[in-house]
Amino acid sequence: GASLLLAWQIRNKRVLLVGGGPVAAGRLTWVLASDALVTLVAPAPLHPEIHYRVFEDPATSPSITYHPRKFIDADLDGVDMVLTAIDDVSTSHRICKMARAKKIPVNVADVPPECDFYFGSHYRNGPLQVLVSTGGKGPKLANLIRRRIEELLPADLGEAVEKVGKLRTELRKRAPGHAGGDVSKRRMGWMVRVCDEWSLEELSTMDDKMIIALLDRGWE
Amino acid sequence: GASLLLAWQIRNKRVLLVGGGPVAAGRLTWVLASDALVTLVAPAPLHPEIHYRVFEDPATSPSITYHPRKFIDADLDGVDMVLTAIDDVSTSHRICKMARAKKIPVNVADVPPECDFYFGSHYRNGPLQVLVSTGGKGPKLANLIRRRIEELLPADLGEAVEKVGKLRTELRKRAPGHAGGDVSKRRMGWMVRVCDEWSLEELSTMDDKMIIALLDRGWE
Repeated sequence: GASLLLAWQIRNKRVLLVGGGPVAAGRLTWVLASDALVTLVAPAPLHPEIHYRVFEDPATSPSITYHPRKFIDADLDGVDMVLTAIDDVSTSHRICKMARAKKIPVNVADVPPECDFYFGSHYRNGPLQVLVSTGGKGPKLANLIRRRIEELLPADLGEAVEKVGKLRTELRKRAPGHAGGDVSKRRMGWMVRVCDEWSLEELSTMDDKMIIALLDRGWE
Repeated sequence: GASLLLAWQIRNKRVLLVGGGPVAAGRLTWVLASDALVTLVAPAPLHPEIHYRVFEDPATSPSITYHPRKFIDADLDGVDMVLTAIDDVSTSHRICKMARAKKIPVNVADVPPECDFYFGSHYRNGPLQVLVSTGGKGPKLANLIRRRIEELLPADLGEAVEKVGKLRTELRKRAPGHAGGDVSKRRMGWMVRVCDEWSLEELSTMDDKMIIALLDRGWE
C-alpha cells in the first residue's frame, strides 16, 4: 500500500520533540520552517545545531520551549504531534503507545511500525515544496532522487510559483466571487489557460508590470 | 510559512468523504490507494468513477461504506480523517468546526483556512511517490511541475526503489540487529555507499541474482 502524501499545516500547532541528537536536529529544522510551536525534551548536551536554534537564533528560539531532562508522561498534554529520536527503544515504544491512545499522530525515528507518518526527503524553493517518499524502501535513495529533481528543475521555479500566486491574488480582486461559484470557476479556467500557454521558464520571468498588463488585456 | 510535507500512513484508518462529484472522485482514488477504509456520504447520483469504485470494482468496493444521503453529525463518530468536497459552503464550515473540536484532521476542498492539510499534486511510480505543493499559490502550476518531474525522472525509477528495498531486506537477514544499534549503523553505511556508487539507472537494472552477488562479494 502507498502512503498518502500531504502538505500538513502546523502553524502554531504544538509539536513535542523528544531527543537532542542529529536526527532530532533535522526534525526541528522542518518543523520550525512550518511555523509550529515546539516543546523540546532532551537532557543536555544538545546537538550544536539544536543548541543554536534554542539559545541563539532569535528567529527560532521564541518558538521553542526547552526542558533539559528525559521524557515524562505529562509532556504529552495538549500536544498536536509527537516526534521521538532517541536511542532508548522501550521509552520510544511507550511514548508511541500513549500518543496513539490520545489520538496524537506520532513518528518514532527508525521504527516504521511506530510511525503514523514518514518524513521522506524534502526539497524547498520558496513557496514550492517537493516530497520524495520511497515507502520506507530506501531513505538514502529518496535523498538521491530528491537531489536529481533539484538539479533538473529550473532554479527560479520558486519565483514562478510566487508570481503565479500574485497573479491569482490580483485576479481575485478584479473578479471576486466565492469558492465553488460561477466567477470562481471562470477564474480557475483562465488561470489554467495562462499556465498552459506559458512555459515554466516564462512564468518565472513575469514581473508586477506584466501581471497588470496581462489582466488589463482582459482576463477572459 | 511552509507546509510540513509528510507521507501519511492511513492503512485501515477510517476516512470520511463527504461529496460525490469530480473533486470527491480524485480524493477517493488517493485515499483508497493508501488502503484506508472509506465512509462515503453523498446523495445519488454519484460521479461515474465513484459509482464504479463503490459498486463495481471488486478491489475497492469492500473498503467503502456508502450512505446515499446528506451529511449527519453522527458521521463523524470514530473517524480518523475528514474530507469534504461539496458546494454547500455552510455545511462544509459546520463539518470543519465539528471535526476540529474532535481533533480529527480535516480538508474542505477549495477553502484553505478550513484545511489542516492540502493534497498538492501527486506522482506515483510503484513504491516511489512524489508530492508537489505550492502552498496554495497555484494548484494548476503544481500539476505542471509534477508533470515536468514525471518527464525528467527515468521511467523505471520505481523499479530501482523496489530493488534497493529488496537489497535492504536481504542485508537485514544477513546482518540482523535492532534499529539504533551498531550493526544497524554499519548496514546503513553500506547501503549509503552502494547508492552513492551506483547511478539511479544502474540500480533500476539490478536483478535478484545481482543482489545476491553483491551481498556475497561481502557487504562491508
